[in-house]
Amino acid sequence: MVPNHVTLQISGHRFHVTYQVRGTVETVEAIAEAICVEQTVEFPRDLLPEGDIEAQIVGRVEAMHQVDEAHWNITISYASEVTGGELGQLINVVYGNASIFPSVRITGLVLPAHLLESFRGPRYGREGLRSLLGIHDRPLLCTALKPMGLSSEELASLAYEFAAGGIDIVKDDHGLANQPFSQWTERVRLCSSAVARANAKTGRNTIYMPSALGTSMSLQDKALLAKSHGAGGILVPPGIVGFDAVSRLADDDSFGLPIMSHPSFLGSHVTSAEHGINHGILFGQLMRLAGIDASVYPNYGGRFSFTMQDCRDIADGTAVVMGSIRSIFPTPGGGMTLDRVPEMLQMYGKDVILLIGGGLFRNGSVTYNTQKFLDMIQGKEQ
Amino acid sequence: MVPNHVTLQISGHRFHVTYQVRGTVETVEAIAEAICVEQTVEFPRDLLPEGDIEAQIVGRVEAMHQVDEAHWNITISYASEVTGGELGQLINVVYGNASIFPSVRITGLVLPAHLLESFRGPRYGREGLRSLLGIHDRPLLCTALKPMGLSSEELASLAYEFAAGGIDIVKDDHGLANQPFSQWTERVRLCSSAVARANAKTGRNTIYMPSALGTSMSLQDKALLAKSHGAGGILVPPGIVGFDAVSRLADDDSFGLPIMSHPSFLGSHVTSAEHGINHGILFGQLMRLAGIDASVYPNYGGRFSFTMQDCRDIADGTAVVMGSIRSIFPTPGGGMTLDRVPEMLQMYGKDVILLIGGGLFRNGSVTYNTQKFLDMIQGKEQ
Repeated sequence: MVPNHVTLQISGHRFHVTYQVRGTVETVEAIAEAICVEQTVEFPRDLLPEGDIEAQIVGRVEAMHQVDEAHWNITISYASEVTGGELGQLINVVYGNASIFPSVRITGLVLPAHLLESFRGPRYGREGLRSLLGIHDRPLLCTALKPMGLSSEELASLAYEFAAGGIDIVKDDHGLANQPFSQWTERVRLCSSAVARANAKTGRNTIYMPSALGTSMSLQDKALLAKSHGAGGILVPPGIVGFDAVSRLADDDSFGLPIMSHPSFLGSHVTSAEHGINHGILFGQLMRLAGIDASVYPNYGGRFSFTMQDCRDIADGTAVVMGSIRSIFPTPGGGMTLDRVPEMLQMYGKDVILLIGGGLFRNGSVTYNTQKFLDMIQGKEQ
Repeated sequence: MVPNHVTLQISGHRFHVTYQVRGTVETVEAIAEAICVEQTVEFPRDLLPEGDIEAQIVGRVEAMHQVDEAHWNITISYASEVTGGELGQLINVVYGNASIFPSVRITGLVLPAHLLESFRGPRYGREGLRSLLGIHDRPLLCTALKPMGLSSEELASLAYEFAAGGIDIVKDDHGLANQPFSQWTERVRLCSSAVARANAKTGRNTIYMPSALGTSMSLQDKALLAKSHGAGGILVPPGIVGFDAVSRLADDDSFGLPIMSHPSFLGSHVTSAEHGINHGILFGQLMRLAGIDASVYPNYGGRFSFTMQDCRDIADGTAVVMGSIRSIFPTPGGGMTLDRVPEMLQMYGKDVILLIGGGLFRNGSVTYNTQKFLDMIQGKEQ
C-alpha cells in the first residue's frame, strides 16, 4: 500500500524548465498540470500521499506567459533531488515523457548552482582546448576525413595533408565507422600516426578525433583504445550513443581527452518549431552538461534546416553562464565552403571552430585549400 | 589527395529505406539526391573518385512515388557494408543527418537476410519471454513501482503485493533512478528479494525489472549488478542511454536477461507526421534490432499523442518478418486503466504486455485491483 503521508529530506533547491505549449486560456492549465505530474510521479494526483511527494516532488508551475494566440510558455520547477545528480535522469525529467506529448517544446533550462555542482561539465571547454592546441587568438579550424570508401591509408594520407596545412582538429567523417574498406582500429592507428608526423614537421599541436561509431566495443573501451593509438580526442553522436554514456566518458580521468559532439539522429528534437528543444539548449547547454568541448551543428545557409537565429541561439547556449560549467566551442559545419568564411567570422567572432569538409576539395588541391583556409582565418586573405 | 578511381570489394547486398519528403515534382529529385549523398559520403558528388564509391557507396534511388500533392515516398538503397554490421552506424546511415533535414520521415526499412545476420536481435522475444514466465496463452501483465518519493522499502512492499497478486513483470517507474529517497542499489536489492518471496509463495515466475537510469555506473555494469541482486531483467530508455549501448547489453551473454524499452526522450521522432520515424519502425523494428524483448509505448486514448493507427503500426512492427530476428511484445501503457482492458484485448489479441501503473491504485486496494486485472485477462471477468 501507498502510505497516507510522506515526509522527505529535501534541500529546497529547484531547477526550472520552460515548456512552450500549444493551448488556449482554457486548456493551458491542464497541460501544465499534466507535465508537472508526468515528468515526476506519473501517478494520479488525487491518490498521492499527503506531504512532501505532493508538495516537493511533483513539478510546480512557477509562471505562465502567453506567447501568441496559440502558444504559452509555462515555467515548471522541479526539486533537484529528482535528478539524483545525474544527466540521464535530468534529461528524463526535463523532457522524457513530455517529448511524447503533442506540441511541447523546451524553451528554457535554468539549473541552480547546487545542482550544477553535480556535473563536471567539459574537461577542456574553450580555454582548455585553446591551451591544448596552442591557438589563443583566432577561430580553430576543423575538417573531416572523407569520403567513405577510401582506405585507411588514403584517409591517413589526407589527415597528414590537413594537419601539415594547418588544420587544428582533423576528425573522422561521422559516417566512418568500422567498414570493410577502412576498419576502425586500423584507421585510428594510421591517422593518429599521420597527424603526429605532421606535427613533428610543423611544430603544431593538431589533434585527430576518430568517430565513436563502429565495432562492438563500448564507447569507453573504444575511446581508451583510440587514446592508446595516439588519437587526440573523440567525436561522439549523443543521439546514438546516448547522452548518458557520453557524460560517463567525459568524467573518466583515464580518458581525459577533448570530446566533440555530432548532431546525428538529434534533428527530430529541433526541426519543428512546435516541438522538441530549443537549439541553444540542445546543442549548447545539454552538450556542456554532458561534458562536450565542441558542439558540431549544421550552419545556416547550408543544406540543412537551421536558420541564422537558430545558430545564434546555439552560440549563446555554448557560453551562457552555468555556474562553473565551462563554455564550449560552437562548431558550425555542414556544406560549408571557403567563400563563406568571412561571413562566419562576422557571425561568430573568434570563439568558434569552423568545420569545412568537402569544401576543401574543390577548386584546387587539399593542400592549397587548407592553406587558404588558414590564411583567411589569420586575416592574411579576405 | 583523393584517388581518381576506387575499386571496392562489395557484396551487392543492399538495404532499403523509404523516406517521405515534402516536395514538388521539381524539387523531389534534388531532395532524393541530397539524402543519397548526405547519409553516406557527405562529399560533393562531382568530386568523388570514379568507380565503386560513386557506384556502390552513395545511396541509390530505387523508387519515387507521389503520396499526395505535397509529399513523396523515396526509396533509397544502401550497400550493407556501410553499416559495418553495427546498429549505431545503421541508424546513422538511415536517419543520422537526414533527421536534420526539414520534413523527412522514415516510412520504410527493409534489411536483407545477409545484413540481418549481423544482428542477434532479442534474446527472448515473445516465445522466450513466455517460456521464462511460464505464461503461454494470455497477455502478460505489467505494472510500475511508483510514485517517486516512496522509500525503497515501500516500493519493495508494493512489488510484493503486485507479484503476489499475479503481475508477470513488475518494473520500476522509469523516473526511479538514484534519488536520495530510494537509492538504486538498495531498491534493486529489496525489490528483487520481495518478488522472489512472492514467487516462493505463489509458485509463479514474476520478474522485477529495475530502471537503467541513475548512478554513475555504465549500463552494462548496472545491468550486471542488478542481475547479481536477483533482478529478472532491466528497463532501458534507448533515447537516453543510446541504441548503441542497448544493443551491446543485449548481446552480452553474461547478462542474458530480458530487456524492456521505455520511450522516454524518443517522442520527438514520432510526434510530427512530416518528420521523424514511423511508429512501427522506431518502436518495433529498431527496438528488435537493438535486442529489446518488450517495447513500451503510450497507448492511444491515454494522455499522449499516439493514435489507434500508430499503435497498430507498432504492433505490426514488433512482428513483421525480419529474417531470424524474433518478434517482441508490444507493451502499451501510459495512463491505462482497468476499464480499458477489454478494448485493449480486442485491439492487440493475446500477444501483448498490458502495462497499467497508477490505474491499479484507484477504486480499491492494490491487491484487489491486481486480482481484478488478472481475472479480466484470464476471462474470469469482463
